[in-house]
Amino acid sequence: MVALRDRDILFIGIDGGGSKCRASIVDADNRLLGSGVAGPANPLHGYAQTIDSIARSAALALADARLSPEILGELVAGVGLAGVNMPRLYNEMASWAHPFRKMYLTTDQHSACLGAHRGGDGAVIIAGTGSVGYSWVNGKSTLIGGHGFPHGDKGSGAWMGMEAVKYLLMALDGLAEDSGLKGELLEVLESRTANEVFEKIGGKSSSHYARLAVPVIECAEAGDPVAAAIVRDGAAYISDLADKLLELKPPRLSMIGGLAPRLRPWLAPHVLDHLSEPLDAPEYGCVYFAQQSLAKEAGGIPVAKKADSKALYG
Amino acid sequence: MVALRDRDILFIGIDGGGSKCRASIVDADNRLLGSGVAGPANPLHGYAQTIDSIARSAALALADARLSPEILGELVAGVGLAGVNMPRLYNEMASWAHPFRKMYLTTDQHSACLGAHRGGDGAVIIAGTGSVGYSWVNGKSTLIGGHGFPHGDKGSGAWMGMEAVKYLLMALDGLAEDSGLKGELLEVLESRTANEVFEKIGGKSSSHYARLAVPVIECAEAGDPVAAAIVRDGAAYISDLADKLLELKPPRLSMIGGLAPRLRPWLAPHVLDHLSEPLDAPEYGCVYFAQQSLAKEAGGIPVAKKADSKALYG
Repeated sequence: MVALRDRDILFIGIDGGGSKCRASIVDADNRLLGSGVAGPANPLHGYAQTIDSIARSAALALADARLSPEILGELVAGVGLAGVNMPRLYNEMASWAHPFRKMYLTTDQHSACLGAHRGGDGAVIIAGTGSVGYSWVNGKSTLIGGHGFPHGDKGSGAWMGMEAVKYLLMALDGLAEDSGLKGELLEVLESRTANEVFEKIGGKSSSHYARLAVPVIECAEAGDPVAAAIVRDGAAYISDLADKLLELKPPRLSMIGGLAPRLRPWLAPHVLDHLSEPLDAPEYGCVYFAQQSLAKEAGGIPVAKKADSKALYG
Repeated sequence: MVALRDRDILFIGIDGGGSKCRASIVDADNRLLGSGVAGPANPLHGYAQTIDSIARSAALALADARLSPEILGELVAGVGLAGVNMPRLYNEMASWAHPFRKMYLTTDQHSACLGAHRGGDGAVIIAGTGSVGYSWVNGKSTLIGGHGFPHGDKGSGAWMGMEAVKYLLMALDGLAEDSGLKGELLEVLESRTANEVFEKIGGKSSSHYARLAVPVIECAEAGDPVAAAIVRDGAAYISDLADKLLELKPPRLSMIGGLAPRLRPWLAPHVLDHLSEPLDAPEYGCVYFAQQSLAKEAGGIPVAKKADSKALYG
């Protein structure tokens, strides 16, 4: 057993996701020392790639901070990952013989929320490829929406893309009105016929559909009625999600994710009034989670070093 | 070379599908001699199972007709299959060293249309797990809609199931009004929470979603406003599809498929006025296709027997 001297502790926040994994190392005063970005880290899509991306992003962050690779074993890690609300995935990740001094694992929603509110209570709407609402108030977490593509995640990029493709196929069949959106989508998909559209996108993953979201929103902004109807419908759902989160009385509410800036002008005015800018990025939320977990756990008492740390995951 | 004497020819019509394959043997006067049903025969889902189900259904039909198994090599087969409008799947199926005297291959839509109109011109709306419109007029085929689940096939069973699941998840989140449909769907899915619903149906195939269509329509019939809105939206699309088909001036228009009787009362009145009862089942359409192909090809001249028949597929 060695006591961790508070002033010496280095934290690493690691935010995993379906397309990349971002790690940032900070000192005890939360000064950024270095960052690194590696490939996808989503346990839903595979354990091996997840731990590989986490380890790579950490190594890159250490290099960026000009710290020796051996420092890895001294870092206290907070890791935010999709799917670890499911016991199977949590246990799988928690059983990893990780290289850190300690590792604290939480959901990507929780770390995003802590990041947005600098470690404090609050709520977030996450709007990117997917959509979900999350609130953390008085130690209670609430998840609203989500549920995944294509049955859930309304208002998300993938949802908008799917609605656009549905419309496009109907328009090509002469079963929906023509519009600027039709031509724009055909251009983006490099297609002329329904069969070509199907070949390009049919059965593809949510991220393929999400690539159509910006063209849809741009058409909506240019006044295309079909595109505007899609975006309005999605944004109305996101506004409803915001209202549901506000019922939980979070001190702050932020909207984050790749689609957030584009979706913002379409939200209900009273929701806009309640939105606060996110303060820090999700990987900082991971750092705050690690710091809070360490503080709760340690309470001034010397903390187990790596060899004993697995007992602390539960 | 042996001449096929017209009065001796036995035809077998084989209608493949995603859940089963049905074969019927008829004599030259189209009198039914026997039928057989085997497992799935959808080339999109695998070649081996498709040819296995075709062969099994044919063997069962022979047994049902109390004909010797060797007669298989004397049968002229018409086979209707999904996906054979795609050259790859057509060529794959056509290269099968099939056991029949001859085999004529067409799409399941064409055989269904020929069946519904006893071999004559006409159009069909096929509404089951999927939805599609097909017309065969003056030797010209037109396909409208379809495109598959979940981006196409509006008004189909799978589409209704998907819309119902979307609603259910929103209702469980408190983001959609409560309704009788919610309780009904939870019962059918043996679930209480959004997570349980997701576990039961999330990411499942179109046939899983299609199982929810009858409960949705029953709720709609009982006056549930949410269910009625879903069914009305789907039926409006099917009515539009019918209008599009009627523009092609088919002598007859029929609606077939498992959902057809349930969907009928929800169609636009002018569409209902144009609907004729389907005359024969799809496997008869396969027989008509074989007879028409043979007649076109032979023109009274002796026809190649099995060993030469591959040349006739193109």
